[in-house]
Amino acid sequence: MKFCSECGSAEVVHRIPAGDTHVRHVCEGCGTIHYQNPKIVAGCIPEWQGKILLCRRSIEPRYGYWTLPAGFMETGESTLQAAAREAWEEARAVVENLTLYAMYSLTHISQVYLMFRAELREGKASAGAESLEVALFAEADIPWRELAFPVVDETLKRYFEERRAGRYSLHLGDISRGPDGKVIVRRY
Amino acid sequence: MKFCSECGSAEVVHRIPAGDTHVRHVCEGCGTIHYQNPKIVAGCIPEWQGKILLCRRSIEPRYGYWTLPAGFMETGESTLQAAAREAWEEARAVVENLTLYAMYSLTHISQVYLMFRAELREGKASAGAESLEVALFAEADIPWRELAFPVVDETLKRYFEERRAGRYSLHLGDISRGPDGKVIVRRY
Repeated sequence: MKFCSECGSAEVVHRIPAGDTHVRHVCEGCGTIHYQNPKIVAGCIPEWQGKILLCRRSIEPRYGYWTLPAGFMETGESTLQAAAREAWEEARAVVENLTLYAMYSLTHISQVYLMFRAELREGKASAGAESLEVALFAEADIPWRELAFPVVDETLKRYFEERRAGRYSLHLGDISRGPDGKVIVRRY
Repeated sequence: MKFCSECGSAEVVHRIPAGDTHVRHVCEGCGTIHYQNPKIVAGCIPEWQGKILLCRRSIEPRYGYWTLPAGFMETGESTLQAAAREAWEEARAVVENLTLYAMYSLTHISQVYLMFRAELREGKASAGAESLEVALFAEADIPWRELAFPVVDETLKRYFEERRAGRYSLHLGDISRGPDGKVIVRRY
């Protein structure tokens, strides 16, 4: 934040406001405190006849890599609506019977992923604006080395493990990166 | 948003950017798109010897009404850390063994509440900066008519129902207000 969005002043500084405990963007011109908060990414694991729908990204970051349909939740919608909307936008997929499956805090980038299990209606899907292609994968065919994000890898690993065991549970955890860039997964 | 936080221009308009599907704040000066996203409120239901910890608010909105400790998640923290931090800030309470209990989308104000079950260490608590007082309540003594928010009411109702039944499950739902201001709860 370079300018205050309330008064247009360039006097925006980083400091802890009186009575607060966190450093904020504060406008010294008009006094407005500009809070920043984590963003929610809502997505799902669309399944049809045992296969999982993945999308190959046509945008950065991770152009060309495979991901589960997921994206930033919008104002005015519910978490389930957000996950279903993203499946439609990225994969022209209608998903049903959504059940919360995993909630991961990506503390290093201040995102919270909400991943739902879902049924893909009629197995139908095609590439949306942010996808090069979409495809249904059996577990044995998942392109593990070409997955876009650690959170997708973690979600799919747990999902297939539990599907084999015949029982799904809710997964909470943190996924971050160490100073060396290495992925750190902490499960609760 | 009255001014662009990137360039300070007053030419911030509401429109759907090319390739987008939602109305955004767009700066016609420098082209920056300013996204707005729902905020996460993380909180918990601290229990000690069968009693639940509530806080009486010393701030608006709902000054003087009772609430579960909860507040906006900060950047850089996990959802569990956020819930535990809020319990400390509002009630000087150390909470342990947090388990996700409910996730409610408050679509009319673009907030997502994450409520955790929690154990209150040693039954100790005292008013933090945003509380007039804090107290432990048995189910029969919960001040139902003086609760601050519908989401607190809904969470506590489900909690006590399930505690009596001896089995907790995860609750998802939307809580909004109709045009007449009436609370609408939709459970999934």
